[in-house]
Amino acid sequence: MKYHPSSEQLRLDNVMVALGHPIRLAVIRVLADGAEHSCGSILSGISKSTLTHHWRVLRDAGVIFQRPSGRENLLKLRTKDLEARFPGLMASVLLALAQDSFTIALTNDYLSE
Amino acid sequence: MKYHPSSEQLRLDNVMVALGHPIRLAVIRVLADGAEHSCGSILSGISKSTLTHHWRVLRDAGVIFQRPSGRENLLKLRTKDLEARFPGLMASVLLALAQDSFTIALTNDYLSE
Repeated sequence: MKYHPSSEQLRLDNVMVALGHPIRLAVIRVLADGAEHSCGSILSGISKSTLTHHWRVLRDAGVIFQRPSGRENLLKLRTKDLEARFPGLMASVLLALAQDSFTIALTNDYLSE
Repeated sequence: MKYHPSSEQLRLDNVMVALGHPIRLAVIRVLADGAEHSCGSILSGISKSTLTHHWRVLRDAGVIFQRPSGRENLLKLRTKDLEARFPGLMASVLLALAQDSFTIALTNDYLSE
């Protein structure tokens, strides 16, 4: 199991940087449903090494939980841990990703749907 | 007057990156009162060129408004514009800066008070 910071270890600056990229915001948009998603199913048209980098940034900041399952990894948003430390933060990001047309357009390019 | 993006031009990724640094979070903590602050009065122990860089990142992302006043610049949080585009986002950041002890400690080093 790869390193995951505990809820107490989450740093607001790291969380912000992790969310400060269109590709990673696109990931959050997919994970917004709260379910686990296999890492190969989330984004389209992005190389494996680039994806690995983005999973790592999100995981190290405590934004996602990643666990191996067979030959894949399953990813999930750490909504509860983030809410415990930074109330309202993830809700506001998910709201922008769902309702702000510019933010939606920013992330559309990376999504297969 | 330096460049400021309009409310419609704000990008969530840029705002997140702008907030993803302890020094810039310390600035937000000071500007949280909604008032204008002179740029020389906000942080302590940081060189002028470093400060200029951080003002620029915050201004270009649309997080602060900067206007010249005599020989100084006055800085102010763009709370209303941010709230219009990303409801709840700045409120959650200000809440963390006011109540989350780890986040408070992260920014304390840069504040003179």
